[in-house]
Amino acid sequence: MTVSLSLAESKLKSWPGLIEAYRAYLPVTSSTPVVTLLEGNTPLIPIPAIASLIGRQVQVYVKFDGLNPTGSFKDRGMTMAISKAKEAGAKAVICASTGNTSASAAAYARRGGMRAFVLIPDGYVALGKLAQALLYGAEVLAIKGNFDRALAIVREMAENYPVTLVNSVNPYRLEGQKTAAFEVVDALGDAPDWLCIPVGNAGNITAYWMGFCQYHQEGKCDRLPQMMGFQAAGAAPIVTGKPVSHPETLATAIRIGNPASWEKAIAAAEASQGGFAAVTDEEILEAYRLLASQEGIFCEPASAASVAGMLKVKNEIPTGAKVVCVLTGNGLKDPDTAIKHCHNQFKDGVEPVLSAVAEVMGF
Amino acid sequence: MTVSLSLAESKLKSWPGLIEAYRAYLPVTSSTPVVTLLEGNTPLIPIPAIASLIGRQVQVYVKFDGLNPTGSFKDRGMTMAISKAKEAGAKAVICASTGNTSASAAAYARRGGMRAFVLIPDGYVALGKLAQALLYGAEVLAIKGNFDRALAIVREMAENYPVTLVNSVNPYRLEGQKTAAFEVVDALGDAPDWLCIPVGNAGNITAYWMGFCQYHQEGKCDRLPQMMGFQAAGAAPIVTGKPVSHPETLATAIRIGNPASWEKAIAAAEASQGGFAAVTDEEILEAYRLLASQEGIFCEPASAASVAGMLKVKNEIPTGAKVVCVLTGNGLKDPDTAIKHCHNQFKDGVEPVLSAVAEVMGF
Repeated sequence: MTVSLSLAESKLKSWPGLIEAYRAYLPVTSSTPVVTLLEGNTPLIPIPAIASLIGRQVQVYVKFDGLNPTGSFKDRGMTMAISKAKEAGAKAVICASTGNTSASAAAYARRGGMRAFVLIPDGYVALGKLAQALLYGAEVLAIKGNFDRALAIVREMAENYPVTLVNSVNPYRLEGQKTAAFEVVDALGDAPDWLCIPVGNAGNITAYWMGFCQYHQEGKCDRLPQMMGFQAAGAAPIVTGKPVSHPETLATAIRIGNPASWEKAIAAAEASQGGFAAVTDEEILEAYRLLASQEGIFCEPASAASVAGMLKVKNEIPTGAKVVCVLTGNGLKDPDTAIKHCHNQFKDGVEPVLSAVAEVMGF
Repeated sequence: MTVSLSLAESKLKSWPGLIEAYRAYLPVTSSTPVVTLLEGNTPLIPIPAIASLIGRQVQVYVKFDGLNPTGSFKDRGMTMAISKAKEAGAKAVICASTGNTSASAAAYARRGGMRAFVLIPDGYVALGKLAQALLYGAEVLAIKGNFDRALAIVREMAENYPVTLVNSVNPYRLEGQKTAAFEVVDALGDAPDWLCIPVGNAGNITAYWMGFCQYHQEGKCDRLPQMMGFQAAGAAPIVTGKPVSHPETLATAIRIGNPASWEKAIAAAEASQGGFAAVTDEEILEAYRLLASQEGIFCEPASAASVAGMLKVKNEIPTGAKVVCVLTGNGLKDPDTAIKHCHNQFKDGVEPVLSAVAEVMGF
């Protein structure tokens, strides 16, 4: 083996998945059967065009976790949750979810040789939203009741039957998710000055903070970032200080009225001298379009809340600061929003001759 | 800097994108402006459940290029094509495409500060298929004419105006795509015994072969793989030996009747003692479902042709061989096929009580 690896060459061995990469920092042992799709190792992409809207030598990156195997950051937690479920001998897992969690749970459970059950409220969701989970082999039960009832039943099932609950209450999920903070530090050489992140159930901001603190304790970074959490205006319980009975936002992945990790998220923001703010759906869509049309990055609408929030409070960003915005999901998860909210530049009925085409193109 | 990096630690620096990683093997210079979304570095995932259908200690991996930034392997070629276009001073690029090429071209062109034009036949395609390209800011022109006419016009535009053609005739695209072969060798430590790949326009099989041969010449691998190309039965001109006027398959990404790289693909198969075979849409769908429900991997239907083909000719695989199947695109690109062809396990109207749910689940 050569000892002087160049920067490029040092990347050319294959990434082993996040449990192997960060084994020393995770609650696994040599007897934990690792169920992995080689998740993690997602790109930290500079977004110079958007950074130029801030100016003052501020550098901005996005952590594009939509490039995980099932298209969202949920895979980070799920590789841990499913591996620990398998270690405990589970033959099935269960969750109540209509979105990214159900897809990730189904993929990892099936890969681990387990059944995957998904409970949803009857009539709540179009089948298309579940296409991915169903193809992975999820067994979906729509119950006559609301989402809270579905959540209550999955908890009861996990208490009374040999079925592991992989909803956000599963403690291993945050352990897996914290590795995103490790990757950010490993890529930048230190923690950023600011970490901007969409906040729905508030698990991910909690996990990032856990990760930064653990790396800091181990001497892997010198500083800690200010944690800046952004909620959708129609679903902003942490910003307003009280639960929202009927949360409304097109950013469905953060449409949550009573976050499970509310207290921990507040603790993270306070300890880091960060904070929370709300962004409107229009601000989210503007950031969503900017990311795609100026930077070439197609994320879920909810993901764009981090960039929308950063732009909203841009005057508070220190000159020369390094900012990382977390993009939690892949835009391909929600093609309907793309087609509805793009600045449509589609012209039909063009005559099939060079001169006509050139004229339409402006030449 | 420490000189004894562990396997895991050696991955923990961030991937610089494929042009930086493989600069020595690509036609770029220090003055080439690199337009990158940090594409490449996609996982090589073992698929042990599918390998067990072959037995005889055959090891099978998938190269999951659907985890590139825009969701397909096209990004490998596009980072090269757009960087070279920018180097040449182009202000706009153009292609005729309704699928992965248009999305990738739009993302990279916009990131590079260029306009992106996409020509399609009038009435040919649902707007939903173009959602991704439109969000990236593509300017789409639907002409009164067929796809061949659209192709002819984009060539004429590129000859007569300062617009760079980024269709498959662009020579830099294969240069970028060949890096997938480099990554396979870097991950395995040598070339695999077999490389199974979907064949439509035949550019990707050509590019992989270029990559393996170049790495072999440079002493980076000891062997060369047998190149096994698989076409859809309704669009199998290379298998049947003559162009197909009206190609038909649900694997739209390989629905091509007269491949641009036909001769080069045949040369690659012959030089490597590989070959071509056709797989039916049913065989493709079966592999597509197997990948999702047994391995947790959701790819485009066309991608599954590689696995379908491998299973079709499994008796020809040498005992103990290492096989890599290429998955070219992300399944999220085509949710309609997922919902139409999954083994739907959806039960509605379930009573919202524990006993009823447990019974439906089989407990």
